This record gives sequence, structure tokens and C-alpha cells, in this order.
Amino acid sequence: MKFCSNCGAEVERRIPEGEDRERDVCPACHTIHYVNPKIICGCIPTVGDKVLLCKRAIEPRYGKWTLPAGFMENRETTEEGAAREMWEEAEARAVDMSLYRIFDVPHISQVYVFYRCEVLDGEFGAGSESLESKLYAEDEIPWDELAFPVVIEMLREFFEDRKTQDFPIRNSTIRYQHRRSG
Amino acid sequence: MKFCSNCGAEVERRIPEGEDRERDVCPACHTIHYVNPKIICGCIPTVGDKVLLCKRAIEPRYGKWTLPAGFMENRETTEEGAAREMWEEAEARAVDMSLYRIFDVPHISQVYVFYRCEVLDGEFGAGSESLESKLYAEDEIPWDELAFPVVIEMLREFFEDRKTQDFPIRNSTIRYQHRRSG
Repeated sequence: MKFCSNCGAEVERRIPEGEDRERDVCPACHTIHYVNPKIICGCIPTVGDKVLLCKRAIEPRYGKWTLPAGFMENRETTEEGAAREMWEEAEARAVDMSLYRIFDVPHISQVYVFYRCEVLDGEFGAGSESLESKLYAEDEIPWDELAFPVVIEMLREFFEDRKTQDFPIRNSTIRYQHRRSG
Repeated sequence: MKFCSNCGAEVERRIPEGEDRERDVCPACHTIHYVNPKIICGCIPTVGDKVLLCKRAIEPRYGKWTLPAGFMENRETTEEGAAREMWEEAEARAVDMSLYRIFDVPHISQVYVFYRCEVLDGEFGAGSESLESKLYAEDEIPWDELAFPVVIEMLREFFEDRKTQDFPIRNSTIRYQHRRSG
């Protein structure tokens, strides 16, 4: 942030009175501009024993496979957001949704909220952000071609939980890891 | 938002190309300004069979009792945010934290994430946003003096779950309700 979104003046980076950390503060109208973590909501959509994945048509991770997910919008619930993203990316309607998995990803100031669901009538397509969508059985998952660490971890847990048909809601934190070269 | 935080020009309210809803868009530098829901993280702190509540020293609901909670900050986890808020509002250290309750509150574009925890050494005080903090047994809770619907619902569930010592993680949505007069 360079300019105050309220009055257009240049903002200053400083610790406001009574607070303990730097914020963008407007010297003209005195607005303090708070920036907070964002929520990514998404689905693990199933048809029978298969999971629906989308091949990304956008960066980052163009061409890699992912679960339908995206930024939560104002005035919706996490469940509504997850269903909306599934429609936008996989042209599939989510039914029988259950909260399943929460990840904190503090180094990018994001919180992931994922729901298990079924695909209405088993019908799906590919939205504008997807090259294609496809159903994968557990032994067909393209593990080396998955887009994000949260997707890998969630799918592993999902198949593990499915053995006992017990899907407890879990939360954990994904910390930044340097990629190893070679 | 009236002015672009990137270049200072006046923003326009319109639907960006390829999107389905209005955003604040800068006609000068073409930045699309996304506004997303915020996360409130907090605790249900216990000492023995009592719950620690804080009396609010700030609006809204000045003078009403609440659980320590507040806006999640960038680069922290929901758990770290909940512990930070408990320190700031009740001068108490959270230990043995477990995710407990998620509320979607879409009409104000907020998601509440609450942890159960114990108070380290049973020590607490009152931070700058609290008039006082106090331990309450179940039959002492000032139900008519609680600050927010989420606090009432969470405490009721907590005492119910405590009977069986089973505290499943739950999520639900709180919709807007007109207050009844009289």
C-alpha cells in the first residue's frame, strides 16, 4: 500500500499509538489500514471411490493438478465459497458437504478451509481456470503432478481416513520450507 | 475504498473483465482491489471447572462479557492469534490449545475460529481492552450480559460437551437476525 484508500494521501509505515506493530497509517485523514490473512476455501469432491481433480489453466502451477479452491468472498460462508469455487473450476455442484480440514499457512498469511463433498449426478466440466477436470481413483492420483503441498497432504489423509470411514475435522500448520535443488 | 492504494487515483466500482461481481478497480493503474472476509480468532480459557471471561472496555458492547478474541494478524496461525488475543485482553497465557469451534458470520464477512485452552498457572489480569477478567463456573455465567451471539452459543455447547468430556470440532453459520424490540 502506497496511498490512503480513504483520502488518496501517501501513507506512512509506523506503529500506531496503543498498538504493537507497524501499519500503513494515513498522515492526512489518520486512517489505519489493517491487512489481515485471507481464507482459501475448497472441496474434496468425490464420485463413488474417485476424487475429482482440476488441471490448472492459471499460474502459479499452470498444468498441475489441484482440488477446486479459491479465495473466499465477502458475504458468503466457507461452505458457500467452497461450492462456488467447485462450480467455477470444475463446473460441478457440491452436495453433502462436511467440514474436513483446516490448514494455517502463516508465511503467506492464508488459512485453508476444505469440505468433503459429493458431485451432484457425477457431472463435471472445466471452468475457465482449468484446462480439464478428471476423476482419479487412489492408485491413479498423479502425486508428482499435484500443485500444492496442502493438496498432497489432504489427499493422503483423505484416503487414509476412508479406510475406516471416519473423517475427523483436523487442523495443522504448514511452515515455509526451502525447496531442495536437484 | 475511494482511492487506489497503489497509485492514488480515484477508483471505479465495476465488474472486471472475466469476473462476476463488482470490485473497486483503478482506471489509471488497472489494479483490482479485492476485499475478503476476516478471521476472528479466540479462546475458551479454563481454570479447573471455570471459564475466564473479559469485560469489554471498548465498543461495540462496552461493559459486556466476552471470550478473549480478535482479528487474526498476517504471518500468524489461528492458534497463535488466539493465544495473542488472550494475552492482550486477559493477560493470561494459553496452554493445551485444541481447535474447537468455527462460525461463519456472512452478513459481516467474518469467520470465527475458537480454541479450547487452559490458563497457564491460573494467572490472569486485564489488558487495555478489558475492564476486568473473571473466572465463572457454569452456574455463574452472566448469560444476559454476554457481548455476542457467538459467545453465548459457544459457551452453551462447551458446557454441554463437558458433561461427556467429548469436544468435537464443529462449524455452523450465524445469520443476521433483526433484534426484537421490547
